[in-house]
Amino acid sequence: MAFMEYKQRTVTCGQLRGSDEGKQVVLNGWVHRNRNHGGIHFINVRDRYGITQVVVGEQVAESVRSIAEALRIEFCIAVEGTVRRRPESMVNPDMETGEIEVDASSLHILSRCEPLPFMIDEETDAKEDLRLRYRYLDLRSGGMQKRIRLRHEFVRAIREHLSAKGFYEIETPTLIKSTPEGARDFLVPSRLYPGKFYALPQSPQLLKQILMVGGFDKYFQIARCYRDEDARGDRQLEFTQLDLEMSFVSREDVLLTMEDLFNDVFASVMNYKLPAHFKRLSWIDAMNTYGVDKPDLRYDLPLVDVGDIAKKTQFGAFQSVLASGGSVKAIKAPATEALSYSRKYIGELEEAAKVYGATGLAFVKVGKDNILETGIAKFLVGHEAELISVTEAHEGDMLLFVAASWKKCCNSLGAVRAKLARDLNLIPKGTFEFCWIIDFPLFEFNEDAGHWEAAHHMFSMPQSQYIDTLESDPGSVKGDLYDLVLNGYEVASGSIRIHDVELQKRIFRICNFDDEEAEQRFGFLLNAFRYGPPPHGGIAPGIDRMVMIMSEQTSIKEVIAFPKNTAAISPMDDSPSFVDDKQLDELHLIIKQPEKNS
Amino acid sequence: MAFMEYKQRTVTCGQLRGSDEGKQVVLNGWVHRNRNHGGIHFINVRDRYGITQVVVGEQVAESVRSIAEALRIEFCIAVEGTVRRRPESMVNPDMETGEIEVDASSLHILSRCEPLPFMIDEETDAKEDLRLRYRYLDLRSGGMQKRIRLRHEFVRAIREHLSAKGFYEIETPTLIKSTPEGARDFLVPSRLYPGKFYALPQSPQLLKQILMVGGFDKYFQIARCYRDEDARGDRQLEFTQLDLEMSFVSREDVLLTMEDLFNDVFASVMNYKLPAHFKRLSWIDAMNTYGVDKPDLRYDLPLVDVGDIAKKTQFGAFQSVLASGGSVKAIKAPATEALSYSRKYIGELEEAAKVYGATGLAFVKVGKDNILETGIAKFLVGHEAELISVTEAHEGDMLLFVAASWKKCCNSLGAVRAKLARDLNLIPKGTFEFCWIIDFPLFEFNEDAGHWEAAHHMFSMPQSQYIDTLESDPGSVKGDLYDLVLNGYEVASGSIRIHDVELQKRIFRICNFDDEEAEQRFGFLLNAFRYGPPPHGGIAPGIDRMVMIMSEQTSIKEVIAFPKNTAAISPMDDSPSFVDDKQLDELHLIIKQPEKNS
Repeated sequence: MAFMEYKQRTVTCGQLRGSDEGKQVVLNGWVHRNRNHGGIHFINVRDRYGITQVVVGEQVAESVRSIAEALRIEFCIAVEGTVRRRPESMVNPDMETGEIEVDASSLHILSRCEPLPFMIDEETDAKEDLRLRYRYLDLRSGGMQKRIRLRHEFVRAIREHLSAKGFYEIETPTLIKSTPEGARDFLVPSRLYPGKFYALPQSPQLLKQILMVGGFDKYFQIARCYRDEDARGDRQLEFTQLDLEMSFVSREDVLLTMEDLFNDVFASVMNYKLPAHFKRLSWIDAMNTYGVDKPDLRYDLPLVDVGDIAKKTQFGAFQSVLASGGSVKAIKAPATEALSYSRKYIGELEEAAKVYGATGLAFVKVGKDNILETGIAKFLVGHEAELISVTEAHEGDMLLFVAASWKKCCNSLGAVRAKLARDLNLIPKGTFEFCWIIDFPLFEFNEDAGHWEAAHHMFSMPQSQYIDTLESDPGSVKGDLYDLVLNGYEVASGSIRIHDVELQKRIFRICNFDDEEAEQRFGFLLNAFRYGPPPHGGIAPGIDRMVMIMSEQTSIKEVIAFPKNTAAISPMDDSPSFVDDKQLDELHLIIKQPEKNS
Repeated sequence: MAFMEYKQRTVTCGQLRGSDEGKQVVLNGWVHRNRNHGGIHFINVRDRYGITQVVVGEQVAESVRSIAEALRIEFCIAVEGTVRRRPESMVNPDMETGEIEVDASSLHILSRCEPLPFMIDEETDAKEDLRLRYRYLDLRSGGMQKRIRLRHEFVRAIREHLSAKGFYEIETPTLIKSTPEGARDFLVPSRLYPGKFYALPQSPQLLKQILMVGGFDKYFQIARCYRDEDARGDRQLEFTQLDLEMSFVSREDVLLTMEDLFNDVFASVMNYKLPAHFKRLSWIDAMNTYGVDKPDLRYDLPLVDVGDIAKKTQFGAFQSVLASGGSVKAIKAPATEALSYSRKYIGELEEAAKVYGATGLAFVKVGKDNILETGIAKFLVGHEAELISVTEAHEGDMLLFVAASWKKCCNSLGAVRAKLARDLNLIPKGTFEFCWIIDFPLFEFNEDAGHWEAAHHMFSMPQSQYIDTLESDPGSVKGDLYDLVLNGYEVASGSIRIHDVELQKRIFRICNFDDEEAEQRFGFLLNAFRYGPPPHGGIAPGIDRMVMIMSEQTSIKEVIAFPKNTAAISPMDDSPSFVDDKQLDELHLIIKQPEKNS
């Protein structure tokens, strides 16, 4: 056996060009394709850097030819040979190494490969669990290789930018105190202290605030975070965020820092020019105009409030909603050849609206000469011109209406807007539209729990004009909060933080944490605030989600080397798994058997 | 209340120079000192960047003067004022801003500070637990600020170097399958799957090998690792390593990659020139010459094997050890004015030797004209000249001997060597001596378990000449292993890995894992090896320990922002802590009450 006896590569599989003609080279890589044309083997050898065509001609030793014959897809091999230019007719302009081929003089099999569960190419249509079970094969695909590389380059560019701006990357612990208040904590049993637990951080929120109290001024960390949430949508148990905090800053400083960062990073990593400053929308304007607090600004399709017009009509469905304080809004679906606004299609739009609480989707079609047709046209007689004017509609456009309580009205029509944009192909490829959402409410009322809670988290600063009315009118309080939105995804969330013990306690109390419980859970933060804390604020962009958007994927699993599946399982190693009784004993744990439902 | 109403800094506290004279500036920072000289306040304001002297003169408004009066140490403040040159006699050349002071026109208290548990200065002599309880204050000290900065710069330089060399940083999951074989895993109970657990990684070892199978070729990660070990020495539950792996490499490639890396990083971060290549010592030579497999090469003090001479003497203690296959070694303790080799001191050296199993430490003093005096001199009559020659001793030197089984002999005398170096002040400050230890044994026999086990880990390649005799003579097998040693600390450990299923199984079997158990624990790795794995190898330098050495500290806690104490507790937040019953219920866990020992 001779595990170490192989020729190490002198070049990679992406390196050789016509100018290398005549060179003796060694390649190491995988058999990407192996074709036998009349006794001549054309072997495409692949590594991370590219693909090179290797030719095993009829003149080479029989021993080499028999190895070529034995090669199967994804065998790992070493090839020695001479670089030669391909005949003019064989040059492949689609391949970086397409000018040349390597005339093999020797071949060596480094390892064999069993028949593949799926082909390795740019992308695969294999089922997700199969891809995850054989992730080591899936990772060899062109798409995964590119995305993991993009992720590396994105994070590298972030680090370089922030380091150059005087930020320190500081590691915070991941075995911390359990302070559940939002999602569930993952717990880690202590072996030394029976019944006690560490928790994995949902984010380094409190630790980064304490770093500010510690005088570090500008901190960031590419931080692993953990949330034990039920599998829904595109979530992972662990995810990665750029965690960032600054002292002596206002909202403006944080926003400009991020704009500067992403301008630099998108230019260097994506060769993409972002605007120097991102659009800013107040939360209320985003809701009113786009029906959502994370609007996709790659297309327009604004919502229009038509309450004033609706009030003048005799349409009972509008009247009753308005009378109870609700809203009537419209969206214009533009005339298009891509789509006819059939009853069936409008039914689909209505379904989208109903998900967010609309009871229905009213519609009219704009005809010639400001005439409205079909749907609720008869209820709008006399108000056609005004409606067409405020919605800027033209012949052939459809007007779609939702009447509901304000938030349901916004969200429902926002969902209609999003579906229309997709179906009308209004979303340009390769475009990145950032915007800021500011002036969020600080609290929201939890109907189930019967008390107010933090809309973001309890450490965010109320805007100063609301400080005196926190308790008397929590619902009106705006926070010094900001979200960064990219192409319709929330990609970062941040705030200016509270740094005053008394104000922090008032927020805790409003959120139903009495002083004793607050002290028990968050006492270490309150203690820190007793020793000269600086004013501070920060933000935390999600790395997985941003790379997903940048690589135009729709699942973060496509940009994570080893994700869990939607059932929180890793099909490759079958974790989570049972452990030895000895391990449980050492941790003082007994597993409670689930009750039988028989 | 006006939390946001303060003037934000226009400059930092480390920035102003004489050339800034006349500028209007705002500083934000902490009151480092506040002296009142005849009604004039001299306030040193500190931030991350430095210290600036602020003067509140007699001419300023009473309202400002009363704030100056109220300021206490570590209040966080905003200062507005004018930069002026200090009078010549007041210039402080030890302060970067020592040429100037800021003549304050306004002062604003951003937050107050309670009386401090310890003073904040360069370093503190406060007890460790007090420092950790108030870590936010401890982090403000000059020493902690410098060390956290050094850590940031060290890791940044590593990332930049490796990225420029074509390595990708790839994040591997931290909720993985429990595969305990070395230290204990930390476990994370699964809420969705009662009785099942994830484990926190002891290192990304298997995942980085799988990345190689996935074709990533050059990988690194600054990786958080976890070991649930008993508190001993300077260990943390979680620690950080530079995890690195490369495909198609030999040992030489990994060693050169590291030498290149640390040459670059020490030059850029420490302004320190390392040799292009590090000394290499085989494990056996390191043991024989320095008595340890992590020798400190900042000083010499070699061990000398004197078995051949001892054999010729009539000294029974030597004879019996040699007869049973043991060793007799000597070390020369040089004549020095720093220390007299009193009986008492030699007794201390003997205690150091006994820790490693020596039964005693024999000694003689080298007198004039090759005469040996005191101690065991009488047993060495006739062999003086030869002894003095092989030990290169001179008048006044002491020769110290240990006779024991080879390993005990080496280790005991190695401990004597280390103590001598410290006591003789032979260790130069600010010097960094790297060396490689190579050719380690692959296996060691576990007397308790009664079987062989991996000296490093089970995934390391045996050197090829031992492949045929693995089972027949495990004790002789050398592995393709390498350790990087710096100033007497092991700072990295690595190996060329096995990438063959059958060879891997042979190693498992030798280490007492039968095929079934191996498949159950490591089946995913064996599966990956069935699909064209490349030859690969890697290494993992410890970040905490390296930064500790670079900053000339003796505990890694000095270079970690929020370490646990030696009892695995964080005194700041009191983790680990009890959690809600609801949390335990959701995780299907019952705590086993410890048995009463009454």
